[in-house]
Amino acid sequence: MNGRTAKIEFWYDFASTYSYLSAMRIEALAGAAGVAVEWRPFLLGPIFAAQGWTSSPFNLYPAKGRNMVRDIERLAAARGLSFVLPAKFPQNSLMAARLALVGAEEDWIAPFTRAVYAAEFADGADISDRVRMGAILQSLNLDSERIFSRIERPDLKDRLKQQTGRAQGHGIFGAPSFVVGAELFWGDDRLEQALEWARRG
Amino acid sequence: MNGRTAKIEFWYDFASTYSYLSAMRIEALAGAAGVAVEWRPFLLGPIFAAQGWTSSPFNLYPAKGRNMVRDIERLAAARGLSFVLPAKFPQNSLMAARLALVGAEEDWIAPFTRAVYAAEFADGADISDRVRMGAILQSLNLDSERIFSRIERPDLKDRLKQQTGRAQGHGIFGAPSFVVGAELFWGDDRLEQALEWARRG
Repeated sequence: MNGRTAKIEFWYDFASTYSYLSAMRIEALAGAAGVAVEWRPFLLGPIFAAQGWTSSPFNLYPAKGRNMVRDIERLAAARGLSFVLPAKFPQNSLMAARLALVGAEEDWIAPFTRAVYAAEFADGADISDRVRMGAILQSLNLDSERIFSRIERPDLKDRLKQQTGRAQGHGIFGAPSFVVGAELFWGDDRLEQALEWARRG
Repeated sequence: MNGRTAKIEFWYDFASTYSYLSAMRIEALAGAAGVAVEWRPFLLGPIFAAQGWTSSPFNLYPAKGRNMVRDIERLAAARGLSFVLPAKFPQNSLMAARLALVGAEEDWIAPFTRAVYAAEFADGADISDRVRMGAILQSLNLDSERIFSRIERPDLKDRLKQQTGRAQGHGIFGAPSFVVGAELFWGDDRLEQALEWARRG
């Protein structure tokens, strides 16, 4: 290890179903492997738009969408997780991503991310709803009014755009993605492999 | 088991890189699980065309294509397999699929399928080349001239169209796919899960 801590970057969009699966297990797996997790929320929308997609591929290609739901139902059941596809899918993840960036500055991004995903994919909640997101912040003993004003500041909005640009720079085209050094892994089913890559250094 | 043999249908297109990975390991894994394999070659082309794609998504979306190559390099290395993307990708898999249907009638489809994938993705060979495909048939001690005339018969051509239609009927949109009863699994990374589903009955 040469004194460096092994680390993995976890790139996710709050609207992404497979990112939910990874968010709920990455800390336990990374902890067991001795790997530090860096949480990297970004927006898939601009990346999808750049490849000519106007919605999630799970909506554009219905057979793929039906398989995704069934696949996640099976995986969630095996992992003891609830799963429901929200009435509106994909959801607008902009507010959640901006809030998460504040959480990255203040070190509550991991529990916040898990709480948002649980609201969205276990309860079917609307994560673009300010009241629901405020309740999540308060459940973490955070001052929601202060944080909601923080995400209105231009520097915070710019940081999300920059983070999405960095995702594209890594070659990211879907979520979740895992970056270990120069190596990119795509999909919840590559999490173990990415952690092994990080562990081996 | 109620006296029935557990079985899995392995749906694959000879042009599919991830199907290569599954073809090389499915018999060993299925044998260990006590599950019989039914080999189901089909053509992805008409299914892709029906969703508006004019080529492989790995060509249409270059970031996805780069990730696929690197992902398969990593997986192949871990499994002791060679991997090279052929100069032309995807290849025309029509002749190979028709030959494989003859192999299904005559019980040489499994070794034939593995030999075609190894030629294509370990050696980079052109699987639409009749000379190369003839050499593969001969390496299996088969009468290649007899089999090449068999695949010109309309009933054989129709059977491939019907098989591709059945794939669509199962909701198949990519390859490899695994069908166990009414359950569809997509992707080499779902093979273990599909076998477990078949084993549990």
